[in-house]
Amino acid sequence: MPATTTAHPAHDNRKIPIVGFSAYSGTGKTTLIEKLIILLKSRGLRLAVIKHDAHDFEIDHEGKDSWRFSKAGADMTCISSPSKTAIVEQRERSFDENLSMIHDVDLILVEGYKQEAIPRIGILRKATGKGLPDSVHNYIAIVTDDDAIIQNRNLPHFHLDDITGVADYIASTFLCEKNQSR
Amino acid sequence: MPATTTAHPAHDNRKIPIVGFSAYSGTGKTTLIEKLIILLKSRGLRLAVIKHDAHDFEIDHEGKDSWRFSKAGADMTCISSPSKTAIVEQRERSFDENLSMIHDVDLILVEGYKQEAIPRIGILRKATGKGLPDSVHNYIAIVTDDDAIIQNRNLPHFHLDDITGVADYIASTFLCEKNQSR
Repeated sequence: MPATTTAHPAHDNRKIPIVGFSAYSGTGKTTLIEKLIILLKSRGLRLAVIKHDAHDFEIDHEGKDSWRFSKAGADMTCISSPSKTAIVEQRERSFDENLSMIHDVDLILVEGYKQEAIPRIGILRKATGKGLPDSVHNYIAIVTDDDAIIQNRNLPHFHLDDITGVADYIASTFLCEKNQSR
Repeated sequence: MPATTTAHPAHDNRKIPIVGFSAYSGTGKTTLIEKLIILLKSRGLRLAVIKHDAHDFEIDHEGKDSWRFSKAGADMTCISSPSKTAIVEQRERSFDENLSMIHDVDLILVEGYKQEAIPRIGILRKATGKGLPDSVHNYIAIVTDDDAIIQNRNLPHFHLDDITGVADYIASTFLCEKNQSR
């Protein structure tokens, strides 16, 4: 390795690197992504996360104006304050549609969307008794506490607790020199 | 009248009509917009609402993955399920930036953004003891229970309870024939 920096085809014009995370539930994927965000932000990077949720999710709070507009039937509701903007749309958007909404960031982290041809970091916790999701391809690195998995895959690998190692790997693989480990 | 259908300049290429609503607080503006959404949706229209909130607002629920990503520092968080998509960005977006995110709707309703040169419907409730916001221009119609206001302004006017009248006015002014009152 390292893997080639492959921008998503529909996203070439934007040149924002994308890295996905794949794991069975219970592996600590969300916690890993959360810690990576904190660490990469501390290095001055601007970040976006795109997550696919197979189940319906609740966002917004009952009784708020934006909630009332959505509840009344607004197909799209946008609310913007001096510190935050939120847009809620009452339909699924494709991965490419979501990508097209992302701007002014250095890196996009993706959870889910396993059909998309983006480079992925696989996460595996031995105690869960499950391997890496086989339906996912394009693994470029493994984060795990299971030595057997590491031996079977010729990929860069990091321990589950080694957030700095994962962050350095992402920086060296996907980001220009100024954003690498310091 | 009626007012000319004036698409927002930055939005000309999209040709989605925009109508704003202006009133002092306590007038029932949000309730009026909510009722209009329900009525216009029942006529088969697709709608977006853009609202400016001068104060910070809470969206998302503590502990949810998307909340955790935003809290960790993600500049943009996008979550999409089979029935809904939400994007939260940790900064204010201009009116034009918000407009650029809106797509596939027949009409955009706007609350706030009083500096924007969009046609507006003024709302006034006599009991509040306040008139229409003077800082707002481009009034094209008035919704009120105050006869004195109606007499002083040479504009189409509707009673606060006449949601159908307001909806018909919006349809005849901004929408093509197929979407007018039926």
